[in-house]
Amino acid sequence: MVSSAQEMANVAGRQSVVSPKIGENEITFSIMAPYAASVKLSGSWMAAPARSVDMIKAGSGVWSITIPAPKPELYTYSFNVDGLNVRDPNNIFLQRDGTRYMSVLLVPGELTANYFEANKRGNLSKVWYESPTLGLTRRMYVYTPYGYDGGTAKYPVLYLLHGAGGDEDAWSTMGRACQIMDNLIEKKLAKPMIVVMTNGNANQTAAQNDVPQVRSQGNQISAAGKFEESIVKDVVPYIDKNYRTYTDRGNRAITGLSMGGAQATLAGLNNPDKFAWVGSFSGAFVLWPNARDPKGGQNLNLDAVGKQVFPNLNSSANSRLKLLYISCGNDDFLFEANRQFKGWLKEKKIKFVDVETPGYAHVWSYWRISLVDFSSRLFK
Amino acid sequence: MVSSAQEMANVAGRQSVVSPKIGENEITFSIMAPYAASVKLSGSWMAAPARSVDMIKAGSGVWSITIPAPKPELYTYSFNVDGLNVRDPNNIFLQRDGTRYMSVLLVPGELTANYFEANKRGNLSKVWYESPTLGLTRRMYVYTPYGYDGGTAKYPVLYLLHGAGGDEDAWSTMGRACQIMDNLIEKKLAKPMIVVMTNGNANQTAAQNDVPQVRSQGNQISAAGKFEESIVKDVVPYIDKNYRTYTDRGNRAITGLSMGGAQATLAGLNNPDKFAWVGSFSGAFVLWPNARDPKGGQNLNLDAVGKQVFPNLNSSANSRLKLLYISCGNDDFLFEANRQFKGWLKEKKIKFVDVETPGYAHVWSYWRISLVDFSSRLFK
Repeated sequence: MVSSAQEMANVAGRQSVVSPKIGENEITFSIMAPYAASVKLSGSWMAAPARSVDMIKAGSGVWSITIPAPKPELYTYSFNVDGLNVRDPNNIFLQRDGTRYMSVLLVPGELTANYFEANKRGNLSKVWYESPTLGLTRRMYVYTPYGYDGGTAKYPVLYLLHGAGGDEDAWSTMGRACQIMDNLIEKKLAKPMIVVMTNGNANQTAAQNDVPQVRSQGNQISAAGKFEESIVKDVVPYIDKNYRTYTDRGNRAITGLSMGGAQATLAGLNNPDKFAWVGSFSGAFVLWPNARDPKGGQNLNLDAVGKQVFPNLNSSANSRLKLLYISCGNDDFLFEANRQFKGWLKEKKIKFVDVETPGYAHVWSYWRISLVDFSSRLFK
Repeated sequence: MVSSAQEMANVAGRQSVVSPKIGENEITFSIMAPYAASVKLSGSWMAAPARSVDMIKAGSGVWSITIPAPKPELYTYSFNVDGLNVRDPNNIFLQRDGTRYMSVLLVPGELTANYFEANKRGNLSKVWYESPTLGLTRRMYVYTPYGYDGGTAKYPVLYLLHGAGGDEDAWSTMGRACQIMDNLIEKKLAKPMIVVMTNGNANQTAAQNDVPQVRSQGNQISAAGKFEESIVKDVVPYIDKNYRTYTDRGNRAITGLSMGGAQATLAGLNNPDKFAWVGSFSGAFVLWPNARDPKGGQNLNLDAVGKQVFPNLNSSANSRLKLLYISCGNDDFLFEANRQFKGWLKEKKIKFVDVETPGYAHVWSYWRISLVDFSSRLFK
């Protein structure tokens, strides 16, 4: 809303503060706040519970702190200025987690190499589709790999679901899914595939920031299997009609994180004619219909899991499943529930790839790693 | 980076402050800042130069102000907390203008009806393409109208360029281009068309927030015609190869705002075999190569315009141009330069649609209105 001359002046003014400043071994954060009495930095790399450090004021009104560079990872951070939580005004790289915005710090290194742009890049489409099952016009994101546009080849499809509080935007932003797929495909670590990222909140049409007249109605859980039904009845047919896909079960995978892990296993294991590859990252399995222990908490009611969630699942699934993949960090608050489900699978003699990873809680850093691992195993 | 239980608690906590609260005739803005000494509201609806109003603190630490609802429009605003400019933490609707983020207020009404989602919605793709002309792998956004996916029809194409400080993301966010096109097409006020939104900064691969390792290098102007050359040599062929387009000049339009208006007229009027429909909204014509008056400012050097910018343009263009459209608000700092260019066109006896609009400066509200008007005239 300014003239370009004013804009230039603004840009010049802002550039006097550079933040974050990423050095070889240290990182400096800065913010101009001349009237503040206290400024703190909070970052996702900090050990809880003391998740903030004081910043120091210089005469110019700029508060700064230099820290040793944390290990390569994609982190989020914010400043606390006299009790007010604010983003870094000099860092253009923001991420939205549901209704919250956070500044992003991407520390380069081996682990994060897949999170930067590859040489050969696929495209990302924001696609509206009809969901008669949910009674909504809904939106999803569709990643098509490098070479899809202008080509004639068919591709397998991965359905990739987000967690509670997220939406169809989450995997391509916080999850860096496009960059990860581009890099894995370029390095021939993963097969070229289409990746479909739906909105898993059953009564949401699209990410709330894009449909601004609709305020948040809270997180919409999967509405007792309706969302999973819509994947099979609405989403898969739309993708197979409008994209060049292989349409056999052997070329279709589904996975997700947290709530999305519960949805992916529910949709995947109950539709063996549709999905031969099924995964869950930090699955929030208590979100399955009636699957929570009546006493509450995160414990599973395994009786309900057997009788109501997966009534037809038995060891005959082994011959149809090319992969059942279940990953969870050992520090995840859902770790025990994952153990309970895996114990139930073992009792049923259903084979699965069991990935338990020390040092990870319920965090995006783990879900990016899980996506790298899971997608590298697909369609081979 | 939190558990879903914590996330739920956070969401619940934040929802105790609702901002903005849009009533029938008034709007209330609020922010929790218990330790602040002064909080102000700045909004794009306020008359300069007194562009802020004081907010009032309640005992709870929440600062608020209620204002009469401004006329229907899409506005941006921010809070100033003890000198620090911050976004509204309770408003999920943010817009990015280059390197700046702003909170958005969308006041419903007749004017803004086209800025909300239509019933039938087109899709938006983020597309990477090779630009040999600029030596870069670059990104653009491509809007395809409702019915394109799964259909077989061909479509005309509008090339829609942003202004200085913006990028390929600008028209679909600040410009609401997808919603505008969806609404106009649904109401049969515009023909169904593909809309291509490129990045007009000649040495930028993509919007800086998506390629975080590249910090801003300042605003990259069109590099003396190279960007316009890349439109004709790289972008148009890519679109015609990868999308179902009509490829004749009569089905190709180009327009843009500010810097993009200068680029669109340069590319359009110098390539009459490619574009029969050419437009400019608030065109920054001094950005044409050597077109600025040697004495500086926003005055045009009309001698250079004739000899160097449009050496081959004369009244024979009238038979080939289906539309030359030049719009500018009367309060725009580029109004006189637009008058100078239009005077030059009149001398050359080149016909154009002359739109001068009282009450508008160099603002997005005007460019959205110009897009509605221009796109409604195309391909008819």
